[in-house]
Amino acid sequence: MIQALALPSETLYMRIFHRIEKMIDQGALRPGDRVPSVRRLSRQEAVSISTVLQAYTQLEAQGFIEARPQSGFYVKPRLWQPPAEPGMSKPSAKATPVSAGEMTLNILKAVRNPDLVALGTAIPSPELLPLQQLNRMMASIGRRDQSAGAAYDVPPGALQLRVQIARRALDYGCLLSPDEIVITTGCQEALNLCLRAVAGPGDTIAVESPTYYGILQIIGALGMKALEIPTHPRDGVSLDALEYALDRERIAACLFTPTFNNPLGSSMPDESRKQLVAMLAHRGLPLIEDDIYGDIAFAPQRPRVTKSYDTQGLVLLCDSFSKTLAPGYRVGWCAPGRFQKKVEHLKFTNTVAGATLPALAVAEFLATGGYEHHLRKVRRVYAEQVRLMTAAIALYFPEGTKVTRPQGGHVLWVEMPPKVDSIELFHQALAAKVSIAPGPLFSAKQKYRNCVRLNCGTPWGAPLDQALKTLGSLARKQG
Amino acid sequence: MIQALALPSETLYMRIFHRIEKMIDQGALRPGDRVPSVRRLSRQEAVSISTVLQAYTQLEAQGFIEARPQSGFYVKPRLWQPPAEPGMSKPSAKATPVSAGEMTLNILKAVRNPDLVALGTAIPSPELLPLQQLNRMMASIGRRDQSAGAAYDVPPGALQLRVQIARRALDYGCLLSPDEIVITTGCQEALNLCLRAVAGPGDTIAVESPTYYGILQIIGALGMKALEIPTHPRDGVSLDALEYALDRERIAACLFTPTFNNPLGSSMPDESRKQLVAMLAHRGLPLIEDDIYGDIAFAPQRPRVTKSYDTQGLVLLCDSFSKTLAPGYRVGWCAPGRFQKKVEHLKFTNTVAGATLPALAVAEFLATGGYEHHLRKVRRVYAEQVRLMTAAIALYFPEGTKVTRPQGGHVLWVEMPPKVDSIELFHQALAAKVSIAPGPLFSAKQKYRNCVRLNCGTPWGAPLDQALKTLGSLARKQG
Repeated sequence: MIQALALPSETLYMRIFHRIEKMIDQGALRPGDRVPSVRRLSRQEAVSISTVLQAYTQLEAQGFIEARPQSGFYVKPRLWQPPAEPGMSKPSAKATPVSAGEMTLNILKAVRNPDLVALGTAIPSPELLPLQQLNRMMASIGRRDQSAGAAYDVPPGALQLRVQIARRALDYGCLLSPDEIVITTGCQEALNLCLRAVAGPGDTIAVESPTYYGILQIIGALGMKALEIPTHPRDGVSLDALEYALDRERIAACLFTPTFNNPLGSSMPDESRKQLVAMLAHRGLPLIEDDIYGDIAFAPQRPRVTKSYDTQGLVLLCDSFSKTLAPGYRVGWCAPGRFQKKVEHLKFTNTVAGATLPALAVAEFLATGGYEHHLRKVRRVYAEQVRLMTAAIALYFPEGTKVTRPQGGHVLWVEMPPKVDSIELFHQALAAKVSIAPGPLFSAKQKYRNCVRLNCGTPWGAPLDQALKTLGSLARKQG
Repeated sequence: MIQALALPSETLYMRIFHRIEKMIDQGALRPGDRVPSVRRLSRQEAVSISTVLQAYTQLEAQGFIEARPQSGFYVKPRLWQPPAEPGMSKPSAKATPVSAGEMTLNILKAVRNPDLVALGTAIPSPELLPLQQLNRMMASIGRRDQSAGAAYDVPPGALQLRVQIARRALDYGCLLSPDEIVITTGCQEALNLCLRAVAGPGDTIAVESPTYYGILQIIGALGMKALEIPTHPRDGVSLDALEYALDRERIAACLFTPTFNNPLGSSMPDESRKQLVAMLAHRGLPLIEDDIYGDIAFAPQRPRVTKSYDTQGLVLLCDSFSKTLAPGYRVGWCAPGRFQKKVEHLKFTNTVAGATLPALAVAEFLATGGYEHHLRKVRRVYAEQVRLMTAAIALYFPEGTKVTRPQGGHVLWVEMPPKVDSIELFHQALAAKVSIAPGPLFSAKQKYRNCVRLNCGTPWGAPLDQALKTLGSLARKQG
C-alpha cells in the first residue's frame, strides 16, 4: 500500500511563479521593473529562500525576468506580447459514447509521412531521445545474455525494471514496492488494463476536457462512455464541476492526466490533488492517473503524482518512457493499487508480456543514472521550444488566438477565433506538408472545432518557423 | 481478399503416413516386415512417387520404418510399445463463463522458477532459438538507424515485416497482400483483437476441447463465454459436433487452432478445413484461426492454413514468431480479412504499437532466408524429442496412460488413469522441481482432471529423463 511521503511541496513555489508571471502579464510589473527581492518575498510569504529562488530561476528560464549582478531580478523587455490563455473548458454535461475512431486513425496514418513537419503527433524529436545509448545497452544485453529473448516476461514483468521504477517513485512522493508495479506495452496498455480492471462496457468514465484522443479511443473501444469534465488550462480538472457530476451521474471511475495534461499542459496544484483523492476515496471510486508527461517538468523538480496522496489503493498510476526515452521501445508500467492482481491477469490475457530486451535496456539506463541527466537536458530544451513556438503563434496566427502556458510536456493547445475550422485546416495544412492535431479529436463529442494541438517536440529552425507561418496564414484566411 | 491457391495437397501424403502407421501399430505390419514398395503404393493409390516417398521419409524420421540399401523400407524393431492415443474429447455441451484465471496465473508464475525442469510451459528451449543471430541483427539495425526506436510503429505496423509475412504466406496457400496484415504484440494480442472485432461481452465463442488456456483466459477476461466442442487428438475439432452446436446455440464466432492444436497436437485434414470454412461461411460466422505452431510441422512441408480456403474474408488468421524464433521478442501478426479496419483501430487503442526493433529484426531474419533454414533444423529436433518423451512416458507412467501423437508442435497431451489428479500432481511435482500444466487449465469447465500437458521443447538428457521418471512414479502412487 502507498504511503504519502513528506516532500517539499511544489505548491508554494508554483504559487509564487504564477503570481509574478501574472503581474508581468497584466502590466503590474513592466519591462525594466525590479521584482521583489528574494529575501523580502521569502519573509513576506513565509516560505524559504530556496523556494523563492526556484520560482525566480524558472521565471528567468522562461524569459520573464533576468538577473542583474549585485542588483537582483528585473522584468525583461519582451519582443512580443504573450497571447491570452484559453479559459476553463465547457464540455457537454452528458456522458456519451466515443466516436471518431476512424477519423483518429486516418489522421494518425496521414501524419506518418516523414516529409511532413510533424506538429500533429506528440512525439519527441529523435535528437532529444538517448537512442544511441539505449540501443547500445540493448545490444550489449543481447550479447551478454542469450536467454533474454527466450522467455515470456510474464506479469508483473522484469524485476530489474520494477526495482528501478520503485526507486524513482520515491522522488515524486510514492513509496511503491516493486511488487506493486506491472510492466506494460507502453502507457496505452497500462491505461487499457486499468480501465478494464475498474469498469465494464456501458460504464461512464469521467475525463478531462479536452483530453488525449488515445484515452477517448480506449474508452470507446471498450464500450464505455466518456463524461467530459470542465478543465482549466493551468490548474486541471475543476473539482467543483467533478463533484457536481459525481452527485448526479453514475460514474465508475475517473481517468485524468493531472500532470501536464495532453493537450492542455495543465498541472493540478498539490492541494487540488489531495482534495481529488479524498473526494473519490469518500465515494470508493478509483482514479486512473496518466502520468506520461510528468517527468518533463520545466521546473527543476517534477510535481508529485496524485497517487502519492492515496492511502486506499484506489489510485492506479499509469506511466511510460515513451515521451522521455523511446516511443518505439514500448516500455510502460502501472501501479494499480488494490487492483494489482486483476491487472496482472488482464496483462497476461492481453499480450502475455512485452518485449524483454527493450525493458531490460530501460532498466539499465535508469540504474546507471543516465535518466536524470537526460531529463535535465530535455526539460530545458522543451521549455525553450514551447516559448519559441508560443512567440511564433502570437506573431502569425489570427487576432484573438489564445495559447496555453504549459509548465511541462511538449504540446500547446491553440484556441483560434470561432470561425476557424480545424478539420479543414488539417486538410489544408496536410497539402502544405504540415501536420496538426485538430481539436475535435480531443473530445468525445468532437467539440473544440476551432482548436488545434501543436507538438513542440521538434527543435526550432527555419522549417518549423515556416510551418507555423503557413498554418497562421491558412487560419487567417478562414477566420 | 484471400484467394485459394492450387498447392500440392497434404491430404494424400498424410493419409498414407497414417495408414502405414496404423498397420504397424495394430500389428498388421510387424518388425522386420517389408512395407509396400514406393512404386507399388504409388500405382495402387494413384498418387505420385514423391508423395509416397514423403510419407515414408516421415515414417522413417519418427522411427517406424528404416531404409535398407537396394532393398526398400522395413518395419523397425521397436524397443517400446507406443502408448494408446486418447479418444475424441467429450466436453460439456453448454457454454460457460471461463474460470480459473487466478489458478492459471499462479501456475504460470510458479513455473518461472529457473531451477525447475520446465515441462509446464510450452516454451522452446533457448538452444533451439536463433537468438544470437536475431540479437545481432537487432543490434545492427539499432546502430544503422537511430530513428528506429524513435517513432510509434502505428497500425498496421512495420511494412518490411508485413512484406515478408505476405511472401511466406504463399507457401501455405494464402495470397495475402501486406495491407491485409496487422503486426501485433505476439499471437495473444492478435487473438485478443480479433475476438474483440467479431464479438462482445456475453457472446459465445466455440473452442476446441481441450484448448490452450491462454485462449480461455482471453475469452473470460473479455466477458465472453466458451463453448467447448469435442475434438479428436489427430483430426481436430469434430465438424459433426460443431454443426450440431451451431444449429442449437447462438455462437458468435469460432476460435480454433486447426494446425497442431495446443495441447492436443491435432491437425485438421485439408478436406475438413474446406468443410469448416464452407459451414461457417454459409452462416456468415467468423473463424479465428490460431496458427502459432503451424510452422513446426514434422513433415518437410507444413499444412495449409484454413484461411487459404476462405473467399469471404471471414477467417481471421493469427500467428507469431514466439514458438519458432523468440518468445521474448513479442512479434505476432494477424490477417483479419474483412475485419481489417476494426482490428487496426483496436490495435491502436490497445497498445498503439509493438516494439519497433524486434519487429525489424524478425523482418530481416525472414528476408535473408534464415527462417526456412532454421525451421528445417528445429522440425527434426522437435519430432525426435516428441518421440523420446513418448517412449519415456510409456516406460514410466501408470498402466493405461494414453498419449497423443502430434505431427507438429512441441507438446504432448497425456491422459492418465481416472484416479490421478493432475492439480495434486502439479503441486507434488513442483516440490520435486518439475513443472507441468494440469489438464483443467485447458477447459473452461476445468475438465481433464486426470490429464497433463507436457512441453517437449527441452532437448533430451538425464534431467528430463529423471523428471519424467519422477512424474511417472508420483502418478503411479495416485493411480
